[in-house]
Amino acid sequence: MTERYTLHEDRRSGNCYKIKLTAALLGQLIELRQYDIMAGDTRTAEFLADVNPNGRIPVLQIESDGAATRFLPESNAACFYLADGSQLVSQDRFTRADMLRWMFFEQYNHEPNVATLRFWLRFVGEANLSEQQKSQIMPKRIAGCDALALMDKHLSEREWFVGDGISLADIALYAYTHVAEEGGFGLGDYPNIGLWLARVSAMPGYIAMD
Amino acid sequence: MTERYTLHEDRRSGNCYKIKLTAALLGQLIELRQYDIMAGDTRTAEFLADVNPNGRIPVLQIESDGAATRFLPESNAACFYLADGSQLVSQDRFTRADMLRWMFFEQYNHEPNVATLRFWLRFVGEANLSEQQKSQIMPKRIAGCDALALMDKHLSEREWFVGDGISLADIALYAYTHVAEEGGFGLGDYPNIGLWLARVSAMPGYIAMD
Repeated sequence: MTERYTLHEDRRSGNCYKIKLTAALLGQLIELRQYDIMAGDTRTAEFLADVNPNGRIPVLQIESDGAATRFLPESNAACFYLADGSQLVSQDRFTRADMLRWMFFEQYNHEPNVATLRFWLRFVGEANLSEQQKSQIMPKRIAGCDALALMDKHLSEREWFVGDGISLADIALYAYTHVAEEGGFGLGDYPNIGLWLARVSAMPGYIAMD
Repeated sequence: MTERYTLHEDRRSGNCYKIKLTAALLGQLIELRQYDIMAGDTRTAEFLADVNPNGRIPVLQIESDGAATRFLPESNAACFYLADGSQLVSQDRFTRADMLRWMFFEQYNHEPNVATLRFWLRFVGEANLSEQQKSQIMPKRIAGCDALALMDKHLSEREWFVGDGISLADIALYAYTHVAEEGGFGLGDYPNIGLWLARVSAMPGYIAMD
């Protein structure tokens, strides 16, 4: 059964890019529908009712003949849906769970720090942050550096996060790591990350973020 | 091949409880090893080198005859490992990804708010919080209520988060929701959550958190 995919996205979002990169590496076509998160496009009554009650992109819309249209929020879940059964998700039980381990690490330890500082500093602008946000810059800087240091150490002994080849763990972590300098993180401190970034971007089918 | 499991845990942690509840519902035995996170037990050089370089519990230790001992951090990844192939993880591709969608929602939108306020208010004590933490109480309160409201709305139309029965999505969200009042959240505002909590706790094999 052929499925058609539409990605509800904002081009600036690394979470959206993960899904596009997954699809590109798998040779899957995805139609794109743009939103401006800074203009509140994902908080409209229509979006909340029809696309995602959580008011966030990305959302993967899945259509197939004779079936109801389905919507899948959460970037890493959408990547898992697209890649389930492919080489990007190991058939080995431990490796598959260990891949998810790094994807949960990404959403808990990496994204709220590395991605949020990029969003604040590059797109919102430091002068426009609330006092509450400003007080979080330093804790997020420290936690983001901790996440990057952990990744760098892990990559000192292996080429990919799990198993012998690229998986969704690499794609999930690549998205915001490769633009971490836009959030003020110096990637020169993490040489193994630099080598791994180059391995990801050399993959057949790779697409850049913009 | 029979496997033996050891859970590195702190009894107060809902993230650890998820794994114990998953194992209990599956009838799997798990040996427990206790740590006191407030005493820094998970930040020792030994723990970082041997168990989890991220300095956190839970970690699921997996042993099987003739294989190297393996360690799996991240609560939801450990649950996935234990339940992969069981009724707690759907064989349907969309339902499986949709289950992960709620598990990523749990770690991104729910746990950093609902669980963190419980930890701060019940275990650390409000008087002992830093100024930076105190300034986060109100944003975390609002974000936690938003997560609970979204769950309550979702449960107004169904008995379980995905599919027709309990899955890891329910277990992941149950862990900190059922003790949310310890973080100052009033569950009386969310009647559908109350009914769902009762469904989870009525499952054969269910174990309480303590």
